[in-house]
Amino acid sequence: MLNYHFLLDLAIILIGTKFLGIITRKIQMPQVVGALLAGLILGPAVLGWIHETEFIKQMAELGVIVLMFNAGLETDLNELKKCGKASFIIALFGVLVPLAGGFGIAMLFNSGNSQPMNTKLILENIFIGIVLTATSVSITVETLRELGKLNTPSGTAILGAALIDDILGIIALTIITSVADSSVSLGIVLLKILGFFVFALAVGIPFYFAFHKYSEKQRQRRRFVIIAFSFCLTMSFIAEHFFGVANITGAFIAGLVISNTTHSHYINRRFDITSYVLLSPIFFASIGVSVSLTGMNSTIIIFSILLLVVAILSKIIGCGIEALACKYSRQESLRIGVGMISRGEVALIVASKGAAVGLINTLYFGPIIVMVVVTTIITPILLKLVYSRGKNEELASAS
Amino acid sequence: MLNYHFLLDLAIILIGTKFLGIITRKIQMPQVVGALLAGLILGPAVLGWIHETEFIKQMAELGVIVLMFNAGLETDLNELKKCGKASFIIALFGVLVPLAGGFGIAMLFNSGNSQPMNTKLILENIFIGIVLTATSVSITVETLRELGKLNTPSGTAILGAALIDDILGIIALTIITSVADSSVSLGIVLLKILGFFVFALAVGIPFYFAFHKYSEKQRQRRRFVIIAFSFCLTMSFIAEHFFGVANITGAFIAGLVISNTTHSHYINRRFDITSYVLLSPIFFASIGVSVSLTGMNSTIIIFSILLLVVAILSKIIGCGIEALACKYSRQESLRIGVGMISRGEVALIVASKGAAVGLINTLYFGPIIVMVVVTTIITPILLKLVYSRGKNEELASAS
Repeated sequence: MLNYHFLLDLAIILIGTKFLGIITRKIQMPQVVGALLAGLILGPAVLGWIHETEFIKQMAELGVIVLMFNAGLETDLNELKKCGKASFIIALFGVLVPLAGGFGIAMLFNSGNSQPMNTKLILENIFIGIVLTATSVSITVETLRELGKLNTPSGTAILGAALIDDILGIIALTIITSVADSSVSLGIVLLKILGFFVFALAVGIPFYFAFHKYSEKQRQRRRFVIIAFSFCLTMSFIAEHFFGVANITGAFIAGLVISNTTHSHYINRRFDITSYVLLSPIFFASIGVSVSLTGMNSTIIIFSILLLVVAILSKIIGCGIEALACKYSRQESLRIGVGMISRGEVALIVASKGAAVGLINTLYFGPIIVMVVVTTIITPILLKLVYSRGKNEELASAS
Repeated sequence: MLNYHFLLDLAIILIGTKFLGIITRKIQMPQVVGALLAGLILGPAVLGWIHETEFIKQMAELGVIVLMFNAGLETDLNELKKCGKASFIIALFGVLVPLAGGFGIAMLFNSGNSQPMNTKLILENIFIGIVLTATSVSITVETLRELGKLNTPSGTAILGAALIDDILGIIALTIITSVADSSVSLGIVLLKILGFFVFALAVGIPFYFAFHKYSEKQRQRRRFVIIAFSFCLTMSFIAEHFFGVANITGAFIAGLVISNTTHSHYINRRFDITSYVLLSPIFFASIGVSVSLTGMNSTIIIFSILLLVVAILSKIIGCGIEALACKYSRQESLRIGVGMISRGEVALIVASKGAAVGLINTLYFGPIIVMVVVTTIITPILLKLVYSRGKNEELASAS
């Protein structure tokens, strides 16, 4: 017989995320916060009703892919082109400042007994910095969408910077693992990342024209939804499998390619529905579910708090100051900095990769998880705050 | 790192089912046929690109649950009440005739060397009959929906009979396994099935009133979609877990409960979209994917053909004649008989349960799979034929 327990898991996740989502909405907070909290409460950290199963993980993965695909579909390409250079500079400093900050506090706690420190310890401490670099764009995207701010200048800058940030994060991860492990060659990895973007252009442009042409003369809109989704899934797979780039980057680019075709709005609506009915509650809950708080002591708690403070401030400062330098207003720069705070699943993936190559002491897993969960939960709250102050200013500049 | 190969599997399934679906539609056949064939071709039987993974199985399970939930949402309760008695009689003979037919041909082939035959062999042969009993309602429902015939008198009779059929099939399965295995008590199983319907009434009626009342004063329609879906999943789980009733029966009843509330049409549309975008292609493809044809010899091939012929005729005769007796027209009776032919996943589940208790010789797995696939593929084709002959007659009687 088939395993049917996942049906109950799904029911609990859906009702839990919706219930807390309604409550957070009642207190004027984004529903995403409720969904994250629901996962935390239902998971092993509090009630222990839901555990991470292979099914939940894969559904969550599918959920974040659909979310990023939709973000791509909704992106205004011209706006993205306009702020591409600014996004790159913001992303660069949004990686360097947290990297330095994370390394700094790790040196305070993880110094070992040997003076001078050996290379292994230094690499471990750099790794803590790298965990702090990658922004989780999905939470921010969902929050900006809820607030209706995805297509404002600051919204687009955040989106662009968060995506570039992911790539810089992957490069940083690759550099350190290639230093620690001689089987990975840095040059090849950089070439592969470059290769993916060349590939995306080479495939995306003909696909865009073929899809656009086919959709103009065909009235069966359902097939475009399926073709678009298959394209998204294939690009996600190819990104990860052949180029070592995060699959969500592939999904986002697939969305971008389709964003200007005849049925893009129709396709977008279909995935919006599939997402809220099934996939995105599972994704957001799964982040909370992945948390289990064991083996905390006072030193670790202090380290957790410091790591969290550094995680938050380093993004606000790193990204915000560069945004100012790129001629965004003070208000916009603050919004951009705040939008980059959330770490989400990317940091967890980086941490687990670090554990696999022996670059992270498992003692630091607890603080990293705390940092991820708290930054993920407070980002929507802070975003809501910074976007509600001086509400009209950016609407005007966006139109 | 996460396993991401399922992304490629999904892309291949989506594009394959859609491609063959478009072709079958072009030659005036229901798209479901294309989706089933796509699974067969992509699976181990032909190309071997897609294999049954836990993820695909669970997505397919979710797919059939959503399909049955939607069928429940779309069912006209008054029509179902009107034809409840007829459906029961049709289902009863739709179980007895195939049971006798399957037992008969199994006796011809599986007689062993001992005269007189021992009890074990007789039980094995009865079991072949039981495999032939359960109708797979999902294929028929999807075809009737595509043809726009779900709410005709014959459509409703088929739906009702197929559901009762499932329950009778479960009872038959239970009787034989309890004869073979002393740990299962027949009386308790019958009590549990009865118990489920009492439970469904006891929960369904208050839920209906609460949901109806809440949905009249609330304007946020999305939350009703989530509440309805959670209810569906919970009922599916409870049916299977506590009462041993198929989870799709629970999903169908959940749909029925919600079918007359304020937002039922809106909810129905949402699940229709989620279904065609993601879940139902996986479900239909998975049936084809489960087929692998090995160890066939001439005796087994002859047995396969006979089993198939008996499977088809026994349903047409068993159900059709009783439909005539229940005062349906000859046309409608033929439609009802044809609508009950497909066996789908239910027969496979029954067969695998039989294998688990040692009641089925694995030699007969091949023929059973052939019977399931062929009945599943020809049902939509035959249904289309019998519904296109004398098209207007039943439309008139349905309005």
